[in-house]
This record gives sequence, structure tokens and C-alpha cells, in this order.
Amino acid sequence: MSINVIIAGPRGKMGSAAIKMVNNEENLNLVACLDRKNNGKQLKDISSQSSLDVPVFENAEECFQQVNADVLVDLTVPEAGFEHTKAALNYNIRPVVGTTGFSEEQIKELSMIAKRQEIGCIIAPNFAVGAVLMMHFAQLAAHYLPDVEIIEKHHDNKLDAPSGSAIKTAELIKDAREAKSQGHPNERELLPGARGAEVDGMHIHSVRLPGLVAHQEVIFGGSGQTLTIKHDSYNRDSFMDGVKLAIEKVMNLNELIYGLENILEINQPENDKGLGK
Amino acid sequence: MSINVIIAGPRGKMGSAAIKMVNNEENLNLVACLDRKNNGKQLKDISSQSSLDVPVFENAEECFQQVNADVLVDLTVPEAGFEHTKAALNYNIRPVVGTTGFSEEQIKELSMIAKRQEIGCIIAPNFAVGAVLMMHFAQLAAHYLPDVEIIEKHHDNKLDAPSGSAIKTAELIKDAREAKSQGHPNERELLPGARGAEVDGMHIHSVRLPGLVAHQEVIFGGSGQTLTIKHDSYNRDSFMDGVKLAIEKVMNLNELIYGLENILEINQPENDKGLGK
Amino acid sequence: MSINVIIAGPRGKMGSAAIKMVNNEENLNLVACLDRKNNGKQLKDISSQSSLDVPVFENAEECFQQVNADVLVDLTVPEAGFEHTKAALNYNIRPVVGTTGFSEEQIKELSMIAKRQEIGCIIAPNFAVGAVLMMHFAQLAAHYLPDVEIIEKHHDNKLDAPSGSAIKTAELIKDAREAKSQGHPNERELLPGARGAEVDGMHIHSVRLPGLVAHQEVIFGGSGQTLTIKHDSYNRDSFMDGVKLAIEKVMNLNELIYGLENILEINQPENDKGLGK
Amino acid sequence: MSINVIIAGPRGKMGSAAIKMVNNEENLNLVACLDRKNNGKQLKDISSQSSLDVPVFENAEECFQQVNADVLVDLTVPEAGFEHTKAALNYNIRPVVGTTGFSEEQIKELSMIAKRQEIGCIIAPNFAVGAVLMMHFAQLAAHYLPDVEIIEKHHDNKLDAPSGSAIKTAELIKDAREAKSQGHPNERELLPGARGAEVDGMHIHSVRLPGLVAHQEVIFGGSGQTLTIKHDSYNRDSFMDGVKLAIEKVMNLNELIYGLENILEINQPENDKGLGK
Repeated sequence: MSINVIIAGPRGKMGSAAIKMVNNEENLNLVACLDRKNNGKQLKDISSQSSLDVPVFENAEECFQQVNADVLVDLTVPEAGFEHTKAALNYNIRPVVGTTGFSEEQIKELSMIAKRQEIGCIIAPNFAVGAVLMMHFAQLAAHYLPDVEIIEKHHDNKLDAPSGSAIKTAELIKDAREAKSQGHPNERELLPGARGAEVDGMHIHSVRLPGLVAHQEVIFGGSGQTLTIKHDSYNRDSFMDGVKLAIEKVMNLNELIYGLENILEINQPENDKGLGK
Repeated sequence: MSINVIIAGPRGKMGSAAIKMVNNEENLNLVACLDRKNNGKQLKDISSQSSLDVPVFENAEECFQQVNADVLVDLTVPEAGFEHTKAALNYNIRPVVGTTGFSEEQIKELSMIAKRQEIGCIIAPNFAVGAVLMMHFAQLAAHYLPDVEIIEKHHDNKLDAPSGSAIKTAELIKDAREAKSQGHPNERELLPGARGAEVDGMHIHSVRLPGLVAHQEVIFGGSGQTLTIKHDSYNRDSFMDGVKLAIEKVMNLNELIYGLENILEINQPENDKGLGK
Repeated sequence: MSINVIIAGPRGKMGSAAIKMVNNEENLNLVACLDRKNNGKQLKDISSQSSLDVPVFENAEECFQQVNADVLVDLTVPEAGFEHTKAALNYNIRPVVGTTGFSEEQIKELSMIAKRQEIGCIIAPNFAVGAVLMMHFAQLAAHYLPDVEIIEKHHDNKLDAPSGSAIKTAELIKDAREAKSQGHPNERELLPGARGAEVDGMHIHSVRLPGLVAHQEVIFGGSGQTLTIKHDSYNRDSFMDGVKLAIEKVMNLNELIYGLENILEINQPENDKGLGK
Repeated sequence: MSINVIIAGPRGKMGSAAIKMVNNEENLNLVACLDRKNNGKQLKDISSQSSLDVPVFENAEECFQQVNADVLVDLTVPEAGFEHTKAALNYNIRPVVGTTGFSEEQIKELSMIAKRQEIGCIIAPNFAVGAVLMMHFAQLAAHYLPDVEIIEKHHDNKLDAPSGSAIKTAELIKDAREAKSQGHPNERELLPGARGAEVDGMHIHSVRLPGLVAHQEVIFGGSGQTLTIKHDSYNRDSFMDGVKLAIEKVMNLNELIYGLENILEINQPENDKGLGK
């Protein structure tokens, strides 16, 4: 079965990667694009990624009326994204939205519309499957190895430290372990900042160097051992496995799901019955 | 509540570390040792780890009759270990056994006795919590990132390559993912062995160098990203967190459990409700 | 002082990155391109990297006659590259050539022409400064820590294993240490290939996974310690620091130098006088 | 030729490891020990590492008079160490001293005595060959890749952050590169300390976790690439390769050398003639 997809934001870096991905997948079919400008043009006129005669719309409602679509992939900004998502749901088109910018209220509103329409909607701040698995595993490990530090490394154009992913990872771990302080009670910094930033006793270290892309490792220490969970993102393609997975999953949902981790079936595989090798 | 513990194999490296651990834990109480020799002596006569007046027995049944114990920690060889475990179950003492040497038949027999006696029994090939978590996470990740290679590193006194843990990890992953071949279909080795050993399309690489202790990393590749799960074991203490956990868990079981992973509650934490940050 | 540069191979991936680099450097001035086709066109007609009115030539001699150039950067194939280099030397234009394909005889011939003309010429199989430093440090370390293994990791489109860089590193180390065998004399492979490929007792392991780019680590083991030297290449820009360095250095040479390592001043800094902290 | 060695500090952790090492080396011969107490006893009475009839002295001069020794290995505290070293030089016994505690004045005084006596003396703050190589390579790399950050990781009993080795590495790099600031000029810490401690624009991050031993990595960033130099110390044996090397080297010196790096011949190997592969 083929899935008809509209992509919003076709000229952005993410949108451009999404067009490439959809074109490469046999079961996905690009049927229209939503753009801030270029109404009435064809995709081949505005994107070097494509030579397709796919129509470009500026107005979301108009697009949803004229095109027979199953899924809207929205990779625009929060303001436009929220309006697109609401409209898509009302036209029975399932949204897959990559954003960190929706408020809790907005998510609740979208959630109610999805429930009323009985169709799926996936909103995810991070579509990199590996990063989402890293955070999930970190949360599980913290039950058994509660001493943990996070090192994240990015190119030196990044302005904020720590990264949003590092802070989110620390908060997930905080929810999973009992509160504790780490390190020696009398430890002291000979140079200020040496021990990094602190979230609930966890220490976070941010490295910024030219050449680096986006990397994070979570290190757990126990008696005589360490466990390290590391994600390396080398380019924007790292998000496309997750977008593809979300497009396929959203077809079988009848409610809004927030976070890629909640569409991954991360639990004990059935063949793991306790009498192992 | 204090737990009374018998340790079998007090002079071995593992047994010696277990004595140290039990002595350091307030809720654990060492009440006897089982040894191949030294019957009638005190622990302080045979171990530099202890100055305690703990009686040493050569005969398991005699020991279990005379001593009021809750748990037997057996860190001996498979032959003796099997007899100790059977006897302990019959005396309503819960066994915690560290061995890879029991046959499937032996495990079934012990399982039936445990069920009949309605008491717990834990048998584990590996008590390092970090290593068990690594294998579990590797199995989960393979669903979403099926391309994987394993690198294990050990000191250069190790005879076998790959390590047992690496082979077990590969088999767990094999159970979790659909069969697939990896690498380029036309790839070729300019020097034989370059691409490592192969298990079900997965490649395993064994590094042996002086200075190394016991290390393994499992690397998953996806589009534009890699996810790495790494365990480093620095000394024999790495097993003791798991032995301690097993002693506490076995008190609340009424059957035999094989594998430390099956006493870890590795599943979605309750506070992970789908409406995250 | 500004350096006038000709780039041969402007439409290739390396040539394209070189055009970008030269355009970004104030002291470098792109004056012509050598291409297999497109004679008489302008660079802006054939490259998306440039909007410059730089003339394109098919014939090297014609180009060197008409254009006032200091340096030829050749990023073509060995056959064309050899002819370009010879011609450039005869026109007193200094060649900077990125190739692994010249024979020892060809290098000797070019070396004699450079000596006769008393101008510089740099030929390098690898222009990534970090990779060259890694190999150099590996060679130095092998004097003191002779037990070593190499792990190289590349994307799964790569056909050959091990990589050329890994083999070259092993050969450099072989020259620097006394011959020795590594690992336990009785070690055995339970699965063939586990211990990797072998060069002079050193073991080389090749990992191939989607997502990876080009990575190599050299691990030295000693009593109670390991030393690891690791290079990660994330994209083709990694070569451009070395090309730039070579363009500047070749101006002050009067002979042919083979290998980027031989233009790096890798020796004891002067301020390292032996009375440290 | 066999070298006769006196060890000062035989009951300390370092001294104890040194006794084991000397006993294992055929060309080294332990002839006496210097201890704060136990005068007149034998080594076998005070050390579990040895069953030898090696005499123990409390008074250094007495020891040096009575015993025919070539080298004194001093692994005591700075105060005693300085007196031992001075006395040894006067008795023509070559000192090998592991300490960070001597003042510049003390080193000058010992240097003059060594010159007058025309014998060797080696004083080193760090005898781990791998750590010394790491620092040396870091200094060399900084010429070509001046953007650098340091991550050091230690067990959580360590009080000071950053470690002495990390600070020393930063200072060596500072001497080798031109002053520069790193990271984005507008970068900001959302949580204080995220970007670590700063030495001359370099950032240093200190991780403290149970299980860890002593680890440091120096990461250099360039265009499209990173170079990482990493040292892992797993136990106290890591110092013994360096102590052994120093014992052998000090026999051929006629002056005081400070720092293990200054007895390593870290320069271009002779077979690296510029016409490589």
C-alpha cells in the first residue's frame, strides 16, 4: 500500500532531506508541498532535490482540499506548524510534526481534535532514532547504576551549552532514579567550571570544536565498571529513519502521540523467555 | 531484615570478592563457608579478606544442617556447584549461582526442585549489571537499527576469541532482528580476517593487548548516525553489584530464574507517560 | 603576498572542495582551471561552487603558457596528474598533488625535474592533517609501547578491507618497532576472523556500517595502561587544511617532498627545555 | 649486565609495585630497601610482595655505605625523598625519583651535585609512559590543530578537579600554540559550568564516577575532522614500564634529567626519509 505525503517546508534543510527520503521509498508518494511562497509552482522549480511535477501551495486548506493525501509531514516553524497541523486533522490528514516549539496547551488542543477525528498524529522534538534510544536506555540504566555524567560535543558554531538533548536526558534520568548527590563530598574545583553544569546531582559537560557535528555520551559508573551509551549524528539524514517510521506508524493510530520514543516498541522481545543460552 | 549467607568457594577470586562485599553490607550476614578442604577451620585461618570466626565446612549437607542460612552464594566449579545447589534447595536455602557450566537438563532439574520447594533460585552466567544492561539494550536497539558490529577488547592472556559475551550478544541480537547480510555485497578482504568473525551477518572483532581488562562495545549504524553501547569492566568488583542484587531478589522468588537480566525490571518507567518535555 | 593557483579537476568532489577553500582564503587567488572538457568556458558555467570568471582549459601546456600561476593543485587521476605535474614543473609552476597512484619511478623522475628547476613540488597520498599526525604519533609510540592493534571504521559502501590508511599505519609501525608477535601464543579463534587481519604481528580490524564516514584508531597496550590515537573524518573538508598548508609550503621549497608528514615540523618545540612543572 | 637497585618506600603502593617489577626483571637486582621503620629486618618480614632476604635500613647514609648499589628508586614523600636523593648522589648512586613535590630550587641544587659527581639522576612527576607520550603528542598536534579541549575522568574519590595531568597538558599546549580563544564568540552557558574550566582558551572537563580509574583524552578539532589522543590507566602497574626505563637510562647519563619525556627519544625515526609508500 502506498502512502500519499504532503511536505511542508520543502526548501528548508530538513524538508529538503525529507523530499529525498520520500522519493527513495517505494511505498511513499509525494503529492504536494506547502511553502510560504511559490504558490502555483512545481517542486522542480524550487528544489534542487527533485525534478518532479509536484504542486506547491501557500494556503494549507486549499492544499488539503485539492490533494488526496494521507499524511502531512510538517518541518516548518512552530507558528505555521500549529496551524497546518490543526487544519490537516480537520481534513482527516494525519500530521507528522518535527518541532520542540508547541506549548502544552497547543498539544492538548491537537490531542482533542485527533481523538474526535479518530486519526493519528505524531509530534516529536527529535526524529533521530539513535538519539531517542540513547535517552530511553539511559533512563532504564539509571535504576541500576545511578551515578551518571553526560558529555555532549558539538561544532563550535553552537551558541547554547548544554544542548537541549543533554538537558532532556538529565531530566529523564532524574525521573528514573532516586535523588542523590555524586562525586566526593569534599571535592573542589581548582579551576571554576571543571566539574561541569549540574542537574539534580548529575554533571553535564559541553565540548565545542570545529569539525564536530552532534555527539552525546551518557556514562554510568558502578563498582569496578562503567556503562556508556553514545549517539553520534553525522548529518541531517540522521532524522530521516525516524520520519519514515512515523509516517508508517501514524497510519495505524487513532490518537496523538508525543515523542518518537512512544511509537518505538521498546520492551522485552517475546523470545526472551528467561531460559537463555 | 538481615539475610544469612553461606559462600561456597571462599578462596577463589570471585569468592574472595564476595566475602569482602558481604562484610561491607549491613543487611548481609556471613554465617558459613563451603570449601573443598579446610573442614573445621575458621574463615580467618584461610582468607586474608576476613578476620571472622566463620566456620568452614567441606560437606554441603552437614553445613546446611548445622547452620541457619537463607542464601547460598556458589562461586565454585559446575560439578560441585550443581550438587551444592540441589542440596541447598532441599534444605530450603535459596541458591545464587555464578556459572556458565550447567547443562539445559541440569537447569530443568533444578527448576523443578525450586518449584516443588516453592523457593527462589538464581543462576547467572554474568553478574556484571552493566554487561547485562548492554546486552539487553543491544537487543532492543537491533529492532530499529539492524546494522551492527561488535568489538570486544581483553588483556592478551585471554585464549579464546571472540569472548563468550560477544557471542552471546550476537545471538541475542540475532533473535531480535530479521535475518540480514551487512556491508557492501561486493566487499573484499585485501588481508584475510580484516572484516572479523561473522554471526548471522554481524561482524565481531577481538582485540588483545596488555593493559586491557575486559571491554565490549556494540555499534549500530543508521542513516547519518551511529549508536554505541559500551561496557568496561576494570576489575572483579564489577560482579559484586549483581551478586548483591541477586541475594536480595532471591528472597522474594518462588521459582528458578536464569540470567541476571530476568531479575532487572527493565521496562518503561511509570512516569514516562508520553507527554514529555 | 598573494599566491596564484590553478586547480585541475574542478568538477570532482575534491576539486570542488578545493575551489571553495581557495575562494575563502584571502592570500590565495584562483587564476584558472584544468578540465577534461569545457575548454574555453568560465568556471561559473561548470561549477555550482563558484560564480567567478575563471578560464577553463583542456590543454595543460596552453594553460601554463597563458596564465601567470604560482601553484598547480592537481586533484585528477594518476595518468593525467603525472602529465600535468611534469608540464607544470617545466613551466616553473609548483605542483601540489593529491594521489596515491604514482609509481616509485614516476616520483623519481618528477623529483629530478624539480631539483633541476630548483622549485618545490609536494605529492601526498593523504591531505588530512589529523590523519597524518595520527600515523606519525603511532610510529613514535611504537618504540615504547610495541603492542598495538588498529581499528578502522568506514561506511558500508567501501569495498576494500582493511583501508589503505590502516595498512600504511601498520607499515610505518613495522618500520619503527622490533619485530614481535602479539597476543597469547596459544590463543585460538572460535570463529574464524575474530582476531582480524595481521601485518607483522599487528592485528587490523575493519568495521563497515551505514552512517559512519571515515574513522581510525590505533591502540597501544602497556602494563596497566593503554594509549589510543584516533582520527575521525566527517566530510571532505578534512583534506582542505592540508591542501592549504601545502600550497603555502611549496612556495619555499626547492625540491620534491612526498607525504604531508614531511612538511609538518613535528619535533620538540623549543620551549620544552627539560625543566617542566 | 645486572643493575643493583635500592628501593625507598617499600611498603607504599608504588614501592610495592616496584619491588614486584624489579623481581620480575632479569637484569635488575634488588639489594636493599630504605624504610621509615623496620631497621635491621629483612624485606620478607615487611612485604607480602617478596620472600627475599633483602636488608631494610632506616638511615640512608648507612645503607649507601654498606650496600653496593647502582641505582636508588625513591618512591617516598618529598621531604625524605630530597634527603635520600642528595645522599645517593654523594655516594655515586644514581637516583630515580617519582615526585611532583620538589621545588625549583631543590631541583637546581640536585642538578649541580649530579653535574659535579658526573652521574645521572632522573626526577619525574609521572612515570606512565603512555601519559607522557599523550602530553608530548598533544603539544605537537596543537601547532597544526590549535582548537582543543581536554576531558579527564577519574574515580569519585578524587578531591581535586581538574587533575594535575590535565592542567599540565593544557600548559604544554599553551606553550606550543599561538594564543587564541575558542568556541563561538557569543556562546552562552544555560547552566553554569557547562563549558568546563578554562586555561588560555582551552576548555577542561572533569568527570568523576565510581568504577573509573584514571583516564584522559585530548581532542583536537579541524575542518571536517577531529584528532583524539587518549590515555587510560587501569592500575598502578602503569607506572612500572617508566620506572624500568628510567633505571636503565640513568646508568648512561651524567646529569640530572627532569621529566620522563626527556629520556624518550621522541623524534623522527631514521627510516622515515620522505619517500614513503
